Amino acid sequence: MSKATNRITAIKSHISQSAPTATESDTNDSAKMSTDYKFQGWLGLDKDSANGKMVWQGYEPKPFEETDVDIKITHCGICGSDIHTLRSGWGATDYPVCVGHEIVGHAVKVGSQVKGIKVGDRVGVGAQSGACVNQKGDCDMCAHGLEQHCPKMVGTYNSKWADGGKSYGGYADYWRGQSDLVIPIPEGMSSESAAPMLCGGITAFSPLTQHNAGPDTKVGIIGIGGLGHYGILGAKALGCKKIVAISRTSAKKDDAMKMGATDFLATDEDPKWAKSARGSLDLIVSTVSSPKMPLQKYLSLLGFNGTFVQVGAPEDAIPGFNAFGLISKRVKITGSMIGSPHEIKDMLQLFQDKGINSWNNNVPMKDANQAIVDMDAGKARYRYVLVNEKHANEASKL
Amino acid sequence: MSKATNRITAIKSHISQSAPTATESDTNDSAKMSTDYKFQGWLGLDKDSANGKMVWQGYEPKPFEETDVDIKITHCGICGSDIHTLRSGWGATDYPVCVGHEIVGHAVKVGSQVKGIKVGDRVGVGAQSGACVNQKGDCDMCAHGLEQHCPKMVGTYNSKWADGGKSYGGYADYWRGQSDLVIPIPEGMSSESAAPMLCGGITAFSPLTQHNAGPDTKVGIIGIGGLGHYGILGAKALGCKKIVAISRTSAKKDDAMKMGATDFLATDEDPKWAKSARGSLDLIVSTVSSPKMPLQKYLSLLGFNGTFVQVGAPEDAIPGFNAFGLISKRVKITGSMIGSPHEIKDMLQLFQDKGINSWNNNVPMKDANQAIVDMDAGKARYRYVLVNEKHANEASKL
Repeated sequence: MSKATNRITAIKSHISQSAPTATESDTNDSAKMSTDYKFQGWLGLDKDSANGKMVWQGYEPKPFEETDVDIKITHCGICGSDIHTLRSGWGATDYPVCVGHEIVGHAVKVGSQVKGIKVGDRVGVGAQSGACVNQKGDCDMCAHGLEQHCPKMVGTYNSKWADGGKSYGGYADYWRGQSDLVIPIPEGMSSESAAPMLCGGITAFSPLTQHNAGPDTKVGIIGIGGLGHYGILGAKALGCKKIVAISRTSAKKDDAMKMGATDFLATDEDPKWAKSARGSLDLIVSTVSSPKMPLQKYLSLLGFNGTFVQVGAPEDAIPGFNAFGLISKRVKITGSMIGSPHEIKDMLQLFQDKGINSWNNNVPMKDANQAIVDMDAGKARYRYVLVNEKHANEASKL
Repeated sequence: MSKATNRITAIKSHISQSAPTATESDTNDSAKMSTDYKFQGWLGLDKDSANGKMVWQGYEPKPFEETDVDIKITHCGICGSDIHTLRSGWGATDYPVCVGHEIVGHAVKVGSQVKGIKVGDRVGVGAQSGACVNQKGDCDMCAHGLEQHCPKMVGTYNSKWADGGKSYGGYADYWRGQSDLVIPIPEGMSSESAAPMLCGGITAFSPLTQHNAGPDTKVGIIGIGGLGHYGILGAKALGCKKIVAISRTSAKKDDAMKMGATDFLATDEDPKWAKSARGSLDLIVSTVSSPKMPLQKYLSLLGFNGTFVQVGAPEDAIPGFNAFGLISKRVKITGSMIGSPHEIKDMLQLFQDKGINSWNNNVPMKDANQAIVDMDAGKARYRYVLVNEKHANEASKL
């Protein structure tokens, strides 16, 4: 997901810019309210920013187009990708960078060509801020509801818009981007719960629906962290009959069972885990990626025609394995990258209908530097959410 | 396929043996002609047999059951698995062993419960001689036409029947086994062409149909040997619009183009092969397996949602790779093992309809020892077929 996002969005976008642009001080015909606000946020200026050295500064957003929306940010989840990007862990980052791609807030400016969003709506944005969806038919991916695979995909940060301007994320006061990628937040779902679903949630959830997880499905989720916990919650929401949480130790067993796991495998503690669970799963979502992961044993957990989906950010190579497992059981190894806007909408609605919430810790936006340090140290249980308190407080009075 | 076959068939079969048995000298009610013949063939007695040291000897076949067929062998293809098994390359072989699982001949004894086969019919047997298909519903695999994945699968050699008796292959005068696995050979197709299709052919062909190869499909075949040449011929028979033969050198380019390839990649000769063909294929069938194979580059040849199918005998591990390719393009890596009887029947008919023949070299059965030495030295273009000349001559006079 995130590495992929960053790499893909390194591709220059070529979205047409025939629409008029507006600065934040304009009062454009299309704007339905005053737009007297500044774009400022936590900027990483160099690799050291990952060590809690981001600085609060203003920056220049993309020129406003009539297909764009501005969001006044109340919440932004912290994703592992944010830290990798701050420290140039996935290739050289284009500093200054404002990370954060699990953004929730209120629409404060809506272009005249935008459909389905009005000023004041509570909305969100995930890891993708732009695609060629405005030019339907231009791209096979967007035409098939696979906007996240659009070759003109613009990542929410550390990416480029068509004019060469940089994209900026959600550790900030405001966000600007393409309306097609903006997601309405269901009424009744809290913003702090919704925000981290927009990247972390859909990354773990999308492979479940892609591979038809439902009441008859026996699912395994490898890695019980920010991504993995959504795998368990998602499998529960889909009513999967067996949900096996797979972790190295049993430290998170109680949590996993509360999230909805029906079984737990602690691979460092039970030497017989692979044998005892052999052939017992239909679908595995792996949120970890390390050359040390016991891939061969993970594959042995699958039954005939089973599927192993890798969603963990692939900083490392997947280890080699003997093809016997693939051949004798037609097991498939594949991957999945975030999710499309329509998938995110469907997931939010399902989670809302099923009363499923993120397991998150809130941190004031002003403490973002400490939060990324804590996140990197593995302290999140299971997702940190930055709260832009002044905006959240204003919103609570609406 | 073959390693898998051997391993799977190491599982003890538990097929019911309530039916009466017969020896080769019996005149059973069900037998429609004299069964005055002996089971004898080329036996490997130890690992050294792989070096051309098989000996011609008699052996005891399984007791005849009323669901069985005896075949008088005229032709038997030489499969790489035969040599691996002779030298215990895939774990300890249960010597003495009579290898060969690409068998064609005539039915000379047909059990009373056999349907669709009568004495005198020209028939064949591939890598599988038994399964639980007689007990329909007993096994999910057989019930779904996936007999090659039956947990009670009996390999054509180096495997065990339900009574613990050994299975014996086709470097021999006669074969005995379960009728459900016996395939009629289409009229007009030569026996020498049909024989190697029964394992080599279906191993490379089945993944094409499993993954819906057809006129719109762009297929790559890696490894232009005994298996790979059937990948090209099969893709041609299915009318695939692009068939890319992928080999280390261009030594087999002319042959591949004659077989039906539309393009050829020589990976040791063209340093830009991966870049120039990037994203150009929908489906790759890999008939090679080596830790040195450039898997990452092979995967890069696939477009969105593309599939890489491994069918090469997995003596070695597949090398590690970065999951980025899987994640960004939803590419799948999977495997396939031989094929079911109905798949083999369909393939033979298609090949017959399209006028497609094996590229094979015939060798008299008496020269089997030299043939396996030559096969192991890579001299086959593209499949050796042993001809049991006395039986073939008799058959030609029928």
